Amino acid sequence: MKETVQERDEEELAAERLTQVLEAVAAKDTARLDMLLDPLHAADIADILEQISSADRSGLLALWHGGIDGDVLSEIDESIREEVIESLPDEVVAEAVRELDTDDVVDILEDLDEPAQEKILDALEDADRIAVEQAMSYPEYSAGRLMQREVVIAPEHWSVGETIDFLRGADWLPDQFYHVILADPRMRPIGYVTLGRILSAPRDAKLKDITEESFRTVRATDAEADVAYYFNQYHLISCPVVDEDGRLVGVITIDDAMNVLDEEHEEDMLRLAGVSDESSIQDGVIATVRSRLPWLVVNLFTASLSALVISQFEGVIASLVLLAALMPIVASTGGIAGTQSLAVAVRSLATRDLTPANARRVIWRELRAGMVNGIFLALVLAFAAVVFFHDPWLGSVLAMAMICNQVVAATGGVLVPLAFNRMGMDPALASGTFVTTLTDVMGYLAFLGFAALVLL
Amino acid sequence: MKETVQERDEEELAAERLTQVLEAVAAKDTARLDMLLDPLHAADIADILEQISSADRSGLLALWHGGIDGDVLSEIDESIREEVIESLPDEVVAEAVRELDTDDVVDILEDLDEPAQEKILDALEDADRIAVEQAMSYPEYSAGRLMQREVVIAPEHWSVGETIDFLRGADWLPDQFYHVILADPRMRPIGYVTLGRILSAPRDAKLKDITEESFRTVRATDAEADVAYYFNQYHLISCPVVDEDGRLVGVITIDDAMNVLDEEHEEDMLRLAGVSDESSIQDGVIATVRSRLPWLVVNLFTASLSALVISQFEGVIASLVLLAALMPIVASTGGIAGTQSLAVAVRSLATRDLTPANARRVIWRELRAGMVNGIFLALVLAFAAVVFFHDPWLGSVLAMAMICNQVVAATGGVLVPLAFNRMGMDPALASGTFVTTLTDVMGYLAFLGFAALVLL
Repeated sequence: MKETVQERDEEELAAERLTQVLEAVAAKDTARLDMLLDPLHAADIADILEQISSADRSGLLALWHGGIDGDVLSEIDESIREEVIESLPDEVVAEAVRELDTDDVVDILEDLDEPAQEKILDALEDADRIAVEQAMSYPEYSAGRLMQREVVIAPEHWSVGETIDFLRGADWLPDQFYHVILADPRMRPIGYVTLGRILSAPRDAKLKDITEESFRTVRATDAEADVAYYFNQYHLISCPVVDEDGRLVGVITIDDAMNVLDEEHEEDMLRLAGVSDESSIQDGVIATVRSRLPWLVVNLFTASLSALVISQFEGVIASLVLLAALMPIVASTGGIAGTQSLAVAVRSLATRDLTPANARRVIWRELRAGMVNGIFLALVLAFAAVVFFHDPWLGSVLAMAMICNQVVAATGGVLVPLAFNRMGMDPALASGTFVTTLTDVMGYLAFLGFAALVLL
Repeated sequence: MKETVQERDEEELAAERLTQVLEAVAAKDTARLDMLLDPLHAADIADILEQISSADRSGLLALWHGGIDGDVLSEIDESIREEVIESLPDEVVAEAVRELDTDDVVDILEDLDEPAQEKILDALEDADRIAVEQAMSYPEYSAGRLMQREVVIAPEHWSVGETIDFLRGADWLPDQFYHVILADPRMRPIGYVTLGRILSAPRDAKLKDITEESFRTVRATDAEADVAYYFNQYHLISCPVVDEDGRLVGVITIDDAMNVLDEEHEEDMLRLAGVSDESSIQDGVIATVRSRLPWLVVNLFTASLSALVISQFEGVIASLVLLAALMPIVASTGGIAGTQSLAVAVRSLATRDLTPANARRVIWRELRAGMVNGIFLALVLAFAAVVFFHDPWLGSVLAMAMICNQVVAATGGVLVPLAFNRMGMDPALASGTFVTTLTDVMGYLAFLGFAALVLL
């Protein structure tokens, strides 16, 4: 998608702002810093903190009068949040977290070490601390960690008028709520009514007569990834959370679900590329090395497999050294084809569009598409071999190897993630290495093998 | 993230349901088909249609009494929507689209060919057709295409009581709305009030006293990707859309923004893997070939570059054929490192976390991280070379080439997408090919070059 003129403008504006902030920090100009930062949205302040160096960051935090509040703390990327919290005086952290809803406090706590966690828990009032500790008792990445505990509920026999009167008297309403949830006397949710419906219905209308047609709940122990999937699939705005007895314990709103979906996407993309999903553009050298070296080492071993295959054909290569120059073409084109097929498959597994029901048809489609691609590329290569090397036999070896490897790449790209998924593992995690190893080994084997048969 | 037991159950349930649907279609058992499909959410019906073969699909559509309604049509993947619409009688399509909001009709129209578009436009009532045609006059992928035109507005001097009375009398309210937008007499939006605030404020409170602190609008011509970014960055639920004179023309809600964000992610992931972003798991062989062959052909040429580099060293290889077996190790590990660095950079550009402000620091970080990774891998490789080949000189060649290529890969992985971005091009689109070409060429060149210097 093209960028609009406006976006360019805004990016330039943001860059200019950042320069001014850094100048103010360098000049220790507190007044100017306040003037620059105070009007900004918490998310934009967090972006500034993320983009400057660690030294500038602590300079800024020491100078800025406005100081970090709960919203900014929530917005800051996990990779630098710990550093920021540790640099702040205890009372500033305490005040910042006290403003936040419990689900936001939980979100901050999750990524901190023990001592920083204690610092924050100690700062909370008793009721909030208990709520946060209860939320933390749910498994990591579960709906229970994601939900807010402040829920707006009403009995189904209430009228619209009664509901509005109740809401006007309530002083504990959450910042964001989009439905009134109807619950039975045992606190089991039985439906919900949108606020728009309540506002537009007559005062004497009964809540139970204006509920939404479709109503879903999730369990507190459900994985947050599944929750995000429900929001996306069924276009939910908010969704009640129940415990194992079906009793209402909280509610998840779409902004949280959107966050999770965004993180899931990031995870898929980074894992496919063989990077730890906790890595961030703000990481230092050591964190970067730690997030990448493991797969590089794995690749060192799998690449050695290719070397082993090639070494079996040293005699063939010695008799025609040109083969050594040409063999990467078959392997590399296979690698691209495997990655293409893999990306489509991993994405479709994530959106649940690739299922056992259509897996066989997809594999069959890949096989034929790989064949067609292979034949096309084979013709081009064979033609080039005849033109440049005047050697139709070499051309036929290249062509046969290319077709083989394209078919293996296309089908392997979907079979490998399907197999990982079947075994309950994340298909994005290790598929990439498997598939490229497969296409490399197959590429060298097919090319040198055919060469040994045809040319010698 | 681990799958929960519940997810497995639900996936099995969905698979079972699909089997039953296919059995009912095969047995032409209309009653059973209705029983299976009628209780389902439109999104789940669309999933079933997507996962079965084209023949089963037309069988199902002919048999099912309930028939396709607007919601199902909206949910169906673009790749099969045209086929479905063409197979339906005109009056069914007409009835289906008449139920939809104009923004959903626009969403359907966008992906259709001229004749299918006509069929739908003809089915609409005059007022709706004009609204749809107006929306279609905005550029593709713009906010104007995304917005719904039904907006709930009020003058700022209204009280909560007046607003509620007005809403109770309005029979044209949109399905989904979360704010009442305050506009001046010239229809310029000046703020908005959440429905929760209206419901909980006293009847005589003025709207202007309970507006949200932060208020943003987008222009109808803004790119939808920017709109999605705003929703994500500022946690918006809905956002007014204005024309070039600042007058309110519509509103975008978070579910549409979430959709766009999801599509953007898909686009990034597929483009990084060298697949056309319009490809889908439902594509046939020809569509699949068309979405992948272009990059394969490009790769055929770039791979020939590697072949050209290698062929310059035929003499070196001829004198030590083992080099041919070992050279892919350096190239392949470089390819992985480049992909890792690239994925992090492309992701960070998309989330606007990599900006001109921190680009230099990120490049410097990559350079040092590449150096550290390179040294580690070099030590392992050199050690292996000494153990297996008893050749410290070969080990030193491998080590030097590895360090060179890791540094090139890590810095190239961030420089290439930055350069594309600077030129106003999508960094996800062509970066992958550039970076792997770079690491391949550099890998072979460094390894064979050092070998020529050291070993001969």
